[in-house]
Parts: sequence; structure tokens; C-alpha cells
Amino acid sequence: MSERVIYTVKVEFGDCDPAGIVWFPNFFRWIDAASRHFFAERGVPRWEETAQTLGVIGTPLVDTHTRFVKSASYGDTLQIAVAIPEWRDKSFLQTYRMKRGEDLILECEEVRIFAAKREGGGIRAVPIPPEIRRLCE
Amino acid sequence: MSERVIYTVKVEFGDCDPAGIVWFPNFFRWIDAASRHFFAERGVPRWEETAQTLGVIGTPLVDTHTRFVKSASYGDTLQIAVAIPEWRDKSFLQTYRMKRGEDLILECEEVRIFAAKREGGGIRAVPIPPEIRRLCE
Amino acid sequence: MSERVIYTVKVEFGDCDPAGIVWFPNFFRWIDAASRHFFAERGVPRWEETAQTLGVIGTPLVDTHTRFVKSASYGDTLQIAVAIPEWRDKSFLQTYRMKRGEDLILECEEVRIFAAKREGGGIRAVPIPPEIRRLCE
Amino acid sequence: MSERVIYTVKVEFGDCDPAGIVWFPNFFRWIDAASRHFFAERGVPRWEETAQTLGVIGTPLVDTHTRFVKSASYGDTLQIAVAIPEWRDKSFLQTYRMKRGEDLILECEEVRIFAAKREGGGIRAVPIPPEIRRLCE
Repeated sequence: MSERVIYTVKVEFGDCDPAGIVWFPNFFRWIDAASRHFFAERGVPRWEETAQTLGVIGTPLVDTHTRFVKSASYGDTLQIAVAIPEWRDKSFLQTYRMKRGEDLILECEEVRIFAAKREGGGIRAVPIPPEIRRLCE
Repeated sequence: MSERVIYTVKVEFGDCDPAGIVWFPNFFRWIDAASRHFFAERGVPRWEETAQTLGVIGTPLVDTHTRFVKSASYGDTLQIAVAIPEWRDKSFLQTYRMKRGEDLILECEEVRIFAAKREGGGIRAVPIPPEIRRLCE
Repeated sequence: MSERVIYTVKVEFGDCDPAGIVWFPNFFRWIDAASRHFFAERGVPRWEETAQTLGVIGTPLVDTHTRFVKSASYGDTLQIAVAIPEWRDKSFLQTYRMKRGEDLILECEEVRIFAAKREGGGIRAVPIPPEIRRLCE
Repeated sequence: MSERVIYTVKVEFGDCDPAGIVWFPNFFRWIDAASRHFFAERGVPRWEETAQTLGVIGTPLVDTHTRFVKSASYGDTLQIAVAIPEWRDKSFLQTYRMKRGEDLILECEEVRIFAAKREGGGIRAVPIPPEIRRLCE
């Protein structure tokens, strides 16, 4: 399994809902940023560049299973530990543990693919590019 | 199991990412709106009102498992069929099937709770209010 | 001046902040959707299509002046009246009046341009495409 | 005029639209976070606390005038210089200059008020709390 990469988030007032806690779709904004951050830290270029070189436009989500443990609110600093524990032929697992200090906020396990543009609109899965996998293992 | 309620979404340009498809956290925005829409359709008052009458400030998410089947893009009209297939003591299952015409876009199964404010900040689970359950069965 | 087009928004729980009112960046999400809706109603194709036919990828914002009059909250239905009162050589004015029934929520006046991709990244202004202007006057 | 406070933003993939540039409502997310950051840096407590002590629930926007100069995209680091150049009886001006290195991205001038909850829902303007003004001058 790959080493973890940490992505840090500062929760803002506008990230919270009328109950005063983070509105959960915002957790997914940060998880997606943490996913991209993982690749950036390993030296994977911007998707705009890989679109030219490898045909890869990003890593869309196929499946997510997320367990919310504690709520968070504005002023909190959250740390997300990201890893890729498993590579398959056309997909990979990416996992996230989000904490505020010692408090566990959520755990998330995703299946993602590498995607290319499909003729006529939409996207299609492509095999894992070996040059990207090598950087991330 | 409760009857399904339909929530309709029109996908906008700004809901899409540089790959030209819906950025997945936006799907969760709509799922949350569909969850609230289910309760509104069954006659459950705004959470601001239930906060006064029942102490309930909303139905925060405890667990979500979502499977993304097809991508969507701006101009698409999506329909989300929402149901509550199971009530437990302190939580309930809420499910979503999102379609564009006949195309399945995603399926989502959530565990949610009814929450009250906790003294000193944050939230806590409360037993399912029978008056709300009665409206929703 | 062009006739007004109406874009309707239903305010959701998650659009509101801990003060219980719409968090203002969400008003701009709806204004942008209303801008695109105006063009769609006049028969202007998706930007993905105009990118192929005219090189136009959208109508980015150059200037916005917005006056917020009343707050809104979840459950509200808002109507946005959109118009294009003035066309210039490389830009145009687009205006919005957002109401909840008879209550004025906000007024917004924008300057927008038509943009094409610039070689090497970023965007550049292009002259107003006459075929689009004709549809919108 | 008060000294400027800097708020730093890292642009993420999902902040960008199908044209590959930041979707403008996201700029307003960051401007609002920068506004709150200014108060936090000057020692103003969270609005949840001032709601108890002063009745103040936040600083809603009354008017914004924003000029967009250059586009930004994911991977960019943006710095927002925030100041409060003018205090009035019931409102204040707050200004923002957003830059990427030496490039000016946007300039924004806002009018904001201090707000309290109104009986029966909604909000109302209150006079500038002297203890907050003193911290921010």
C-alpha cells in the first residue's frame, strides 16, 4: 500500500448549514480535492496536461462508501490522510481518514477509474496508465 | 416501504467540471435536497419549526453508499426517486435512484438520524419522533 | 431592450448558512444559471456546441454590481427576471431582478463577454457573434 | 484605514467549470471566507459566540461591486488582501484585491452590515458594535 498523503482543510462559515455544522456535500468537495492532491504530491501532472499526453482527463468516481462519525464546524482545521491501497486493471481504491486533532470525523473508501473523453460526449474508462501507477505506488 | 417521491433537477453549466461532466459533490447537493423534499412532501414542517416543537434540527447523514453508473452534463434533466425503506430505533434508511429518462445515473443508500443540538455545541441523535415517522410511512 | 426571461429557483436547506439565510455565493450560482437559461430560451446551443461552430466557450463575467435587499431562506421560491439591455462591440450588459412573490430580494447588473480558448491556456474575448446577438435581441 | 490581512486560496479542479477556469461564484465563496478571516485575525470571536454576547450573528452583504481582470485555474495559489477602509453608522466597506503572484485576478468592494436575528425569522441591521470596530481599526 502507498504511503499516506495529508490534505489540510480549514472549515469556513459558509461551509456550514442552518444546524451550524458542515453540510455534508462540502466534505465531498474536500475529499475530491484531497484525491487530486494525492496525485499532485506524487508528481502526476494536471489533467489538462495528461489529456494531451495520455488521453486521461481525470479520475471520476464509480463508488463511494462514507461513514460520518463526528460533526465539524467553522474554525475547525481538518486533516485528511489519503492512500491508494489497491490497484485493479481499470480501477483503483482510494481511501480517506479525516480527523480534527485526535477526533475522527469521517472515513471514506472510493472506487475510481481513469477516464478519457468518449467520441460524441461523455467519458469512458481506460486501463490504468502504468506511468501514473508507478508514481503512486 | 414508503411510496417513492420524485425530486427533479436541471443540471447547470456551473455544476460541471473541466471534464464537462457533473462534479460529483453536486450529486450530493441534490441528494440532500431530495431527502428534505421527501419530508416536505409528506407534510413534515421546516426544521426551523421542528427545532421549536420537537427539538429536531434536521436529519444528518451517518453513512452513505453511492454507486455512480453514468455521467451527466449541463442541460440534462435528472429525476431522483426517494424512499425510506426501513425505520430503526435511532436511525433510518433513505434511498435514491437518479435517472435521466431511462438511463440510470446513480444509486444511493444512506443511513440518517434525527438530531438535536447538544449543550455546548455540536449535535446528538434523538429517537425517531413518532409524529414524523407516521407522516412518512 | 430584449424581453425578460424568468428563471425559477427553489431554495434548499443546504443553500443556507448558520444564520439560517441564503449564503450569498449561492445567489451567484443561480444568477449564472439564469444567464445561461436566457440564452437557452432564445435558442442558443450549448457552449460545447458553439465551441465547435463559433469557437465560443461561454460568457465569462467581467464586472458585477449586485444590491442585496432582503434575505431568503429554505422553502422559498425565487423568480429571476433576466434581460440583456445593451450590446457593445466585445461585451454586453445582463441584468437580473430576483423576487419572492412581491418582495425584491436582489438586483444585479453584469458586464459579460463572449470568450474563446487562448493558445497555451486561459481565455480571450471575441467580438459578439452576430448569430447569437440576433437570437437574443 | 485598517492594515490589510492576507487570505490564501488554493484553486481545486472542482472549482473550475467546463471552460477550465474558476466558476465565478467560487470567487465569492473565497471572498466571504476572506471577510470572516479578517475578523478572526483581529480577534473577533466566532459569530456563534457574538450571537450570545452581542446579538450579532454575522456580517451579511448589502452591496458588492466586483471587477474580474484575469481568469484562474486549478493548481493556482491566490492571495486575497482584505481591508476595511471605511466605517459608517450601520454599515462598513470591505475591500479585496485577489492576486496570483503579480497578476491581478479581481478587485471587489462590498458594503456589509452587522446583523441580528429578527423576531419571527429573517435578520435586521444593528449599529456597529464598538468593541468589534475597535479590534478592526
